[in-house]
Amino acid sequence: MNYKNIGRISGKIMILEGILMLVPLAVALIYGESLDHKLGFLIPIASLWLLGGLLQIPKPERRTLYQKEGFALTAIVWFLMPFFGALPLVISGDIPSFIDAFFEMASGFTTTGASIIDDITSISRSVLFWRSFSHWIGGMGVLVFVMIFIPESNDGSSMHLLRAESAGPQVGKLVSKMKATTGILYLIYFGLTVLEVVILMLDKPIAGYENDQFFFSLLATFGCAGTGGFGFIPGSMELFNPFSQYVMAIFLLLFGCNFGLYYLILLRKFREFIHNEELRTYFLIVAVSVAVIFVSLIGKWEAFPQTYTTEEAFRHSLFQVASIMTTAGFSTTDFHMWPTAASTTLIVLMFIGAMAGSTAGGIKISRIVIAVKSAYTNVLKLINPRYVPKTKVEGKILEEKTKNDVFAFITLYFFILIAVVFLLAFDPVNGTVVTVISDAGTYTVEHGFYSNFTSVLSCISNIGPGFEAVGPYCSFSGFSGFSKLLLSFTMIVGRLEILPVLLLFSPKTWKKV
Amino acid sequence: MNYKNIGRISGKIMILEGILMLVPLAVALIYGESLDHKLGFLIPIASLWLLGGLLQIPKPERRTLYQKEGFALTAIVWFLMPFFGALPLVISGDIPSFIDAFFEMASGFTTTGASIIDDITSISRSVLFWRSFSHWIGGMGVLVFVMIFIPESNDGSSMHLLRAESAGPQVGKLVSKMKATTGILYLIYFGLTVLEVVILMLDKPIAGYENDQFFFSLLATFGCAGTGGFGFIPGSMELFNPFSQYVMAIFLLLFGCNFGLYYLILLRKFREFIHNEELRTYFLIVAVSVAVIFVSLIGKWEAFPQTYTTEEAFRHSLFQVASIMTTAGFSTTDFHMWPTAASTTLIVLMFIGAMAGSTAGGIKISRIVIAVKSAYTNVLKLINPRYVPKTKVEGKILEEKTKNDVFAFITLYFFILIAVVFLLAFDPVNGTVVTVISDAGTYTVEHGFYSNFTSVLSCISNIGPGFEAVGPYCSFSGFSGFSKLLLSFTMIVGRLEILPVLLLFSPKTWKKV
Repeated sequence: MNYKNIGRISGKIMILEGILMLVPLAVALIYGESLDHKLGFLIPIASLWLLGGLLQIPKPERRTLYQKEGFALTAIVWFLMPFFGALPLVISGDIPSFIDAFFEMASGFTTTGASIIDDITSISRSVLFWRSFSHWIGGMGVLVFVMIFIPESNDGSSMHLLRAESAGPQVGKLVSKMKATTGILYLIYFGLTVLEVVILMLDKPIAGYENDQFFFSLLATFGCAGTGGFGFIPGSMELFNPFSQYVMAIFLLLFGCNFGLYYLILLRKFREFIHNEELRTYFLIVAVSVAVIFVSLIGKWEAFPQTYTTEEAFRHSLFQVASIMTTAGFSTTDFHMWPTAASTTLIVLMFIGAMAGSTAGGIKISRIVIAVKSAYTNVLKLINPRYVPKTKVEGKILEEKTKNDVFAFITLYFFILIAVVFLLAFDPVNGTVVTVISDAGTYTVEHGFYSNFTSVLSCISNIGPGFEAVGPYCSFSGFSGFSKLLLSFTMIVGRLEILPVLLLFSPKTWKKV
Repeated sequence: MNYKNIGRISGKIMILEGILMLVPLAVALIYGESLDHKLGFLIPIASLWLLGGLLQIPKPERRTLYQKEGFALTAIVWFLMPFFGALPLVISGDIPSFIDAFFEMASGFTTTGASIIDDITSISRSVLFWRSFSHWIGGMGVLVFVMIFIPESNDGSSMHLLRAESAGPQVGKLVSKMKATTGILYLIYFGLTVLEVVILMLDKPIAGYENDQFFFSLLATFGCAGTGGFGFIPGSMELFNPFSQYVMAIFLLLFGCNFGLYYLILLRKFREFIHNEELRTYFLIVAVSVAVIFVSLIGKWEAFPQTYTTEEAFRHSLFQVASIMTTAGFSTTDFHMWPTAASTTLIVLMFIGAMAGSTAGGIKISRIVIAVKSAYTNVLKLINPRYVPKTKVEGKILEEKTKNDVFAFITLYFFILIAVVFLLAFDPVNGTVVTVISDAGTYTVEHGFYSNFTSVLSCISNIGPGFEAVGPYCSFSGFSGFSKLLLSFTMIVGRLEILPVLLLFSPKTWKKV
């Protein structure tokens, strides 16, 4: 491990984080917030710049990154970002406990959106902004962004970072001209963000929040773009007007697409775009899920408390599917109280997630497609042992290694899920009763296996809410400090797709080479 | 597909099933049951012999089995057995619905032990015997048994059957002298069965059932040997005396061991036995689970309704761990009401199951060991790309194919689990309230995701009870006919470890060659 070089690049990221914090500092100034809030950003900015600057002093002999260093660096940075990102929440006094604040910002940067805040109205504008902004920052990843501006990165080092930080089983041919294409992907991200804010501004303001339309449009868009999903008013997106809810649902689905696809459009490769298998599977799953949930809400063969008009049933179905499948986690209604058919559909979507190469979490559709096709190949091999397996995805024959990596990833995903659910079972919160107030009325739930299971699923897939005691109108505040750290860890494991984080646990990673 | 040969061997199995049914017929005669009960066995016996005999008439040109034929035959037989096995339940009038009876017998042969019977006292002796006897038959598998007595099977055909029917990722060197060793394994199975019956007879009779000790000892032993777990008196094993409960727990753990290990003892290879990695992992998991549950029951940091003495807490912990981990599913107390730490531990055990080469279901410890070690190798490969991975299990270097098959199996296991949970979400039973009467008192539960999830987990791992509306004091009777068939299918998928059943769905399997 080339510690000097790791330190140098981590330092650059810290300086960048300090720069990014200037934005919420500006928000604190604009809204004339208290001195604590201004200091809340000033102190971390100063610390980040100082520490980041000091880390630039030792000159590493080698400036390239080996694969393991790229992966380890990525994991280290993803722990550092929420560590420093949590300071403004603590110093401002909005979230006094550091563990809570760390959970909140790990949830922010990993674009999970799980929150420990019980009363969102008690949180200042600058902190609300910083939380949602962290979704936007974390969505596309920070390391690759930094690498664009580092001159010596043109040697393959960046590829390791890209592999470690971006989502999905394969980066594909986009890697070849890494620097150029990464820049384009960021531009697309930026462009879509601006477009969504503009369209949301076309809606009429939310009743009671007439002066906040721009602020809310921005925060909602950050959540959509990064598929994060932090709320900023009570009831997540319940109070948003139907027009805005539709707009958000559509943009969520757009941000759940592989960004490489937009690149295809820019290159006018419409044919390739339309025939993309993962895209087709994605929209097929969306359509089926919306249909299933809509029918179960309209059919009412299983009773549930809410009464929806047909339009509402459709809108809520579309929104929740878009929000859960893209692993954002916004909600417009209390889907925990929905019929089993509807809630189970959402839970299945929590596993799947959206497309590889998007800002979404979860197993990813491409992996599901590869796994199902490979399983079918295995059956064919059993039928005819002399059969030479050719599993084709996106028109290309899959390499054995890709298949095996996918199976190994999915296995690890479930093993980690189960292991963390097991550890949460020891939390004293289990057995406690939580009172929930939502559009489904006031009811109580008991914290138990179902809550823990969906908490972990939600965190490892970077979604946000779960069911029962961590439903859309609940928070993660009840968990012990240990569980909160464990769940923060799970979010980062999910965001970096497991292996980079596991790497940190091997002593061999830390050997000085 | 050589239909004549498949028919011929299926026919032999049917004749065997007819022969096996003579035993419950004898029970009906001994207990002087009604004519319906006698006919209930006589009619299926006659049908099985007639159909099985007719299938011997067409003489196949080729008597060997290709791999796909071996696998398909195994799957077909495992659907035929419960199909005919269900007839006595229907004809006797004990379980009038054929779907219910099919579920019950699929549960019996696959050694699941999930039941649709709400009032066990309404079931006749002969049917109770047949249900539990089917555990014993299904535990070791029927096809391999038949192959021992078929002269022409000495050509490798039997290996395909053994691979398809026996549990675990590898059969190992035991396959070489297939016929001899299979015979020995059956003898060990038979010997342990007799031993358990004898030891259970040493206990004092259960109060109120003074004349039934032999009958009950036999049925309880069938359930232990096959790790099935059908109850035959109200409350599963709750009424059994502590001595019998301890005896059953120990025998369950013994039947959860790889039978090859007993063979090692017979060969006096004690060293190999003691150093067996899977065995050590097995007992480590048992010890940790018992400790965790015992402490959570004694520590009472989460409230639960039962009050146990220290001895009771230990006995119930040991029994439930032994019963769930070996995927039998017997219970001595209402573990659904246990603290989250205890119930979650049991749920984790439901995934794991016991050792490969035992009569238990689940993912199997050897697969877990292989997956975890291989994942670690993957991390090492990431650290040093030039590293040549050597994953050692039981002192041998694992082949890449074995690893990949294990990862593929685990992925499919979870995919099927999730898919079936999704389909169950549409059952009208969801949202209904079930009243449960157990040693934890009288309480109500609502049928929903948790019930469905643990139902499917319980069926695919061949356990029996789940949690909530399918807890140890509930039954599967509430499910619709479609769900019952689906769950029966899931049990067979779990028992045959997925691929043989999936094979039936490929048109290529059915091509006449």
